[in-house]
Amino acid sequence: MQATTESKQKLREICRIAARVFYEKGYDGASMQDIAKAVGLTKAGLYHHVGSKDRLLFEIMNYGMDILDETVLQKVKDIADPREKLRRTIVGHIDLIVRARDQEITVILHENRSLKGALRKKLNLRKRQYIDYLEDLISQVQTQPGTPQLAPRVAAFALLGMVNWLYQWFDPEGPIKQSEMTEAYVDFFFRGLLATP
Amino acid sequence: MQATTESKQKLREICRIAARVFYEKGYDGASMQDIAKAVGLTKAGLYHHVGSKDRLLFEIMNYGMDILDETVLQKVKDIADPREKLRRTIVGHIDLIVRARDQEITVILHENRSLKGALRKKLNLRKRQYIDYLEDLISQVQTQPGTPQLAPRVAAFALLGMVNWLYQWFDPEGPIKQSEMTEAYVDFFFRGLLATP
Repeated sequence: MQATTESKQKLREICRIAARVFYEKGYDGASMQDIAKAVGLTKAGLYHHVGSKDRLLFEIMNYGMDILDETVLQKVKDIADPREKLRRTIVGHIDLIVRARDQEITVILHENRSLKGALRKKLNLRKRQYIDYLEDLISQVQTQPGTPQLAPRVAAFALLGMVNWLYQWFDPEGPIKQSEMTEAYVDFFFRGLLATP
Repeated sequence: MQATTESKQKLREICRIAARVFYEKGYDGASMQDIAKAVGLTKAGLYHHVGSKDRLLFEIMNYGMDILDETVLQKVKDIADPREKLRRTIVGHIDLIVRARDQEITVILHENRSLKGALRKKLNLRKRQYIDYLEDLISQVQTQPGTPQLAPRVAAFALLGMVNWLYQWFDPEGPIKQSEMTEAYVDFFFRGLLATP
């Protein structure tokens, strides 16, 4: 199906609302009826737009990856210095998790295992591209002399763990400010990556 | 209810099996009938043992925290050097996540939001005790001169993120060995905590 701008906008609107329903009830707990009601469509109308519940979950996660692309990766793509590019990527990723805690991004993080088969493979490919991008940046940053031995893949997953886990605990209204946490996280990561103890 | 050793053993057996069912179907997707069948009890028999589905989720998570206590914290409690105590705690926590990826611990990590009200408060209190314990150890380790400014709470959550996220990606049968990943994680964390860049 060739997505026109209008149908893409409609799909994104459905994704945003459905993400909230999945967030509240869990993927297995939410019915297509619940989602149709929240979106303001009949169940048949919802199926017309998204095909199946599986497909809807995929579309939400795919939209989440689009948001990462559009709001983070596109903005840093012309930065030449790998360290600055990595720093800006981390700051952007943190901001995404903190701002979008209860929407598409959380569904990606939380309903990972709910997606099956070919759709799961397709999404995992997009995720793997992001991990490869991080690994590549990390290994470029590691070229300075005296850098500790640390497999870029392990460093990339340590980073993803630190940052993605924020959705489980960080409260933007809590005692630690987002700017403070972000700076502490970035400094901590670069010390872990580069410093000699 | 005064738990005898025998009823405690029975409860733990139910928790282990129910954790697997919740892992496979999600908390919202799994019915008490599914769990009763997996355990080999009637639905009435299951309710007799666990009271309610909510209570069962709490018991699984509580059991998960018991495992952390028994297999990690009890074993390091007499270590005097805070850095060694922290190191051994991290190694133990990693091992727990890697070994128990599809059981009680994963349910704690993944079904966090499914627990409500008083039971959630009770479990959060146990989790907070562990976070307080980590924070306290971290601040003891930070007393050496030249240590970077890093709020112990932020360091504790960065650590929990790195380690707990392992359940999402680390495959003990994959190319990175558990011992290799553990050493890299511990070194990375201590550099992030202590090293000067």
